[in-house]
Amino acid sequence: MSRFLFSLLIIILPVSAHSQLPAVKASKQWINSEGSNILSDFAEILKIPNHASDSVNISKNAVQLDQMFSKRGFDMQVLELPGAPPVVYGERLVAGATRTLCFYVHYDGQPVDPEQWVNPPFDPVMYDKALFQDGKRIEYPKKNEPIDPNWRIYARSTGDDKAPLIALSAALDALENSNIDLTSNIKLFFDGEEESSSPNLVDYLETYSDLFDDISVWLLCDGSVFQTGAPQLKFGGRGVTSMEITVYGASRPLHSGHYSNWAPVPGQMLARLLTSMKAEDGSILIEGYYDSVEPISDFEKQQISKIPNIDEFLKKDLGLVQTEGNGQSVFEQLLLPTLTVRGLSSGNVGSRARNIIPSTATATLGLRLVKGNDPEAMLDLIEAHIKNEGWQVVYEDPDHETRLKYPKIIKVKRNKNGYPAGKGSMDDPQILPVINAVKAYTGDKLVLLPSSGGSNKMYYVIYNMLKKPAISVNIANFDNNQHAADENITIGSLWYGIELYSVLLTMPQGPEILIDK
Amino acid sequence: MSRFLFSLLIIILPVSAHSQLPAVKASKQWINSEGSNILSDFAEILKIPNHASDSVNISKNAVQLDQMFSKRGFDMQVLELPGAPPVVYGERLVAGATRTLCFYVHYDGQPVDPEQWVNPPFDPVMYDKALFQDGKRIEYPKKNEPIDPNWRIYARSTGDDKAPLIALSAALDALENSNIDLTSNIKLFFDGEEESSSPNLVDYLETYSDLFDDISVWLLCDGSVFQTGAPQLKFGGRGVTSMEITVYGASRPLHSGHYSNWAPVPGQMLARLLTSMKAEDGSILIEGYYDSVEPISDFEKQQISKIPNIDEFLKKDLGLVQTEGNGQSVFEQLLLPTLTVRGLSSGNVGSRARNIIPSTATATLGLRLVKGNDPEAMLDLIEAHIKNEGWQVVYEDPDHETRLKYPKIIKVKRNKNGYPAGKGSMDDPQILPVINAVKAYTGDKLVLLPSSGGSNKMYYVIYNMLKKPAISVNIANFDNNQHAADENITIGSLWYGIELYSVLLTMPQGPEILIDK
Repeated sequence: MSRFLFSLLIIILPVSAHSQLPAVKASKQWINSEGSNILSDFAEILKIPNHASDSVNISKNAVQLDQMFSKRGFDMQVLELPGAPPVVYGERLVAGATRTLCFYVHYDGQPVDPEQWVNPPFDPVMYDKALFQDGKRIEYPKKNEPIDPNWRIYARSTGDDKAPLIALSAALDALENSNIDLTSNIKLFFDGEEESSSPNLVDYLETYSDLFDDISVWLLCDGSVFQTGAPQLKFGGRGVTSMEITVYGASRPLHSGHYSNWAPVPGQMLARLLTSMKAEDGSILIEGYYDSVEPISDFEKQQISKIPNIDEFLKKDLGLVQTEGNGQSVFEQLLLPTLTVRGLSSGNVGSRARNIIPSTATATLGLRLVKGNDPEAMLDLIEAHIKNEGWQVVYEDPDHETRLKYPKIIKVKRNKNGYPAGKGSMDDPQILPVINAVKAYTGDKLVLLPSSGGSNKMYYVIYNMLKKPAISVNIANFDNNQHAADENITIGSLWYGIELYSVLLTMPQGPEILIDK
Repeated sequence: MSRFLFSLLIIILPVSAHSQLPAVKASKQWINSEGSNILSDFAEILKIPNHASDSVNISKNAVQLDQMFSKRGFDMQVLELPGAPPVVYGERLVAGATRTLCFYVHYDGQPVDPEQWVNPPFDPVMYDKALFQDGKRIEYPKKNEPIDPNWRIYARSTGDDKAPLIALSAALDALENSNIDLTSNIKLFFDGEEESSSPNLVDYLETYSDLFDDISVWLLCDGSVFQTGAPQLKFGGRGVTSMEITVYGASRPLHSGHYSNWAPVPGQMLARLLTSMKAEDGSILIEGYYDSVEPISDFEKQQISKIPNIDEFLKKDLGLVQTEGNGQSVFEQLLLPTLTVRGLSSGNVGSRARNIIPSTATATLGLRLVKGNDPEAMLDLIEAHIKNEGWQVVYEDPDHETRLKYPKIIKVKRNKNGYPAGKGSMDDPQILPVINAVKAYTGDKLVLLPSSGGSNKMYYVIYNMLKKPAISVNIANFDNNQHAADENITIGSLWYGIELYSVLLTMPQGPEILIDK
């Protein structure tokens, strides 16, 4: 988030919320007395490098988490599959509980380029405010020293996704300290390769299915709060796939003097094809593209209408006067499938540009999918459109014989790893208690997003394979620099996480009627 | 040229031509007796590396050329300007001559990447045929051993542009040996930085203008013969310029899940703009783009109609079914200005593609210009078109304030080094004798091209600044791999060069009526 937007929003919205729930009181009390210890414990977790490919350090992380939750009454197992980072699994059964919640957190992080960081990425350091606010480095607080929730810790995985680990452990300690019972069986699923697309996730879920069969609701802790800083719950994510298309001119790059005006120009042909796919207002012109979209429920429509409209803020922040979608809000637009030119390439630009007619031009198209859209079927629609525009579709570079057969040849490379949206209904009987409990804590500023605009394989796997609901219970500040250099978390976000998780750990059993339904 | 096209053409067209002109007879006789020496002398020239930035070796080349033509009766001067490779200049005055011909050759070469070469680029080696014909390396011939004109020498600058140096020196020797007088004063202009775009050329011509004022006709020796292998003369070249355009979306790349369908997609916007510039048949839709084209003369039209139609050969060779221009031949299309997408870039494609909305998309447009087109005026027309499509044109990256003012922003970067076409009339009284003389040597297979499709600053400078005619008298084989690895020349091309230059050195004075005018 830019300084501009940040400074606007920090005034409008408090960093965390208040409530008189016993769990929240217990958490606040625990934070007051143990805050400095929580922060120094967090620093210990952050010191261990955690790229999924770094098996030595990944194991150290797993051992640390195993110990951390063993201490807190969990039966822990470090699950393994050949060649995969371990999944750290834990369970704590609660007498009389009829529901099992599973907290999904990933302990691996994005790769780092230390050159780009102000401080070394695995040396967690405290700042009095954000670097972009000209924050100064400060010492970690000592016992009983006051702690400002605007302070930030900078290190890889502070926000994405180690904060939930310390928040959850502190929430458990806070409840223990105040003798407040948990109301659900709790399971832990700590993924060690999320930032590498969790290639072994399904394998783990299948191999160890006995451990996961009885989970009622998955709570996904990965991610940040709403753009304005408001608390949010998300109940699904969009599907995703992509297609790369390459159009062909002559079989080799040609001298632009000797052949232009005569030889086909791939960049020009590609531009024409892309133009045929989308109108200037952003509506997609591919036949049937919107046909399979499943309508959302009235309850969800109602919730969307309550989401703060941040379009004008975003436009100012992003330097935009005009948007796609004829004035629909960014959140309304998340309910439709997308088609985005995420990359273009032909010849060279800039100082490497040469006076040639390139022999190919390539575009890569990104698709986000909503419930109802099948990834393969959506790619089929695009292919059908391309054929309808007179192109001969091939799946390998065309040989000379093929080139001499067709006037317009295009190679289509379909993403084989796409997946559909994963999304439940917000009025699912397992979901309503979560909404109720969190709303009792946050009040009306809670944002309920039927689906994230982004894609998270977990939603897809949980809804479509495990047939269970998944809810994102995000805690990180929106400007946590997730995936980038100088990743950070505000102390206020950590405190919010502790309170939120204590609420989830102690929420009532039944699906009572939602206050504002 | 591909194996396919080459094998077709080598049967159709002889490598060189025959004639009973005394100069040609003298050349053939000289080649017969001295061929092996000519080749070993050529090898000596090729051994000296010659990139314009390599000042030590560039000087060695200059010294060698100075000596080579001093021996042949030329008053030589190595002209110098600070920081520039020298121009090797020479003159040989002929009693009674009323015309001064200047041979323009460049002795510098393209940079080399030895990794890409079969043999080291400055170790000239002989092959019995082309590498692509599975040629085998052979020894240089000894005195009086038969020499096959299909043999090739591989080394940097064999074709581009050291062959004319050895051909010209051998032609002078051949005429001397047969006591045939030259019919014109001869000047030499050997450029040392042509492959670096001759940045000091105009400066040299101005600084040493006394040496160049009396030149009647410039003979440009750079380049290859006609695509079919037929001899050709060219009387001009197209102008050239370019424009790079960059369109802007949000001020930073955005997560495609959270913002697509709402944030503008630069690649899509650029595609729409490019599509508005050119119709599917290749005709340029920019208003006024063809208005300034100067019509060509009837004589030139007649010559163009005689150029062998090689479209079907080219299409087969290049793997094309369809071409731009509604069936006009490639040579007819050279008479029009072009607009070519020579490069496209936005985000990434292939394995580096990411699920983002890139913040910019860039296209670079190459323009070739014909006589009548002013480079600045043509770029103005494109800019006017862009504005007409609703774009706000800027010349620097837009700042935040600018971004918040205009819905569609485009940065235009105009090439400041473009230049207009340089082209004379083929019936110019200084040009006709050259056509006549060469035709008397080659017969009817001579191709007369009013203008090259490519651009050569020399044409522009000579026609527009010096106001003199310039004629390309090319000798290299078409498949000489000019600028690339494994550059080569056929021995037949060298022999053709000797004969051609002997004809030019001895052509009659007057502009007699052209046989077929």
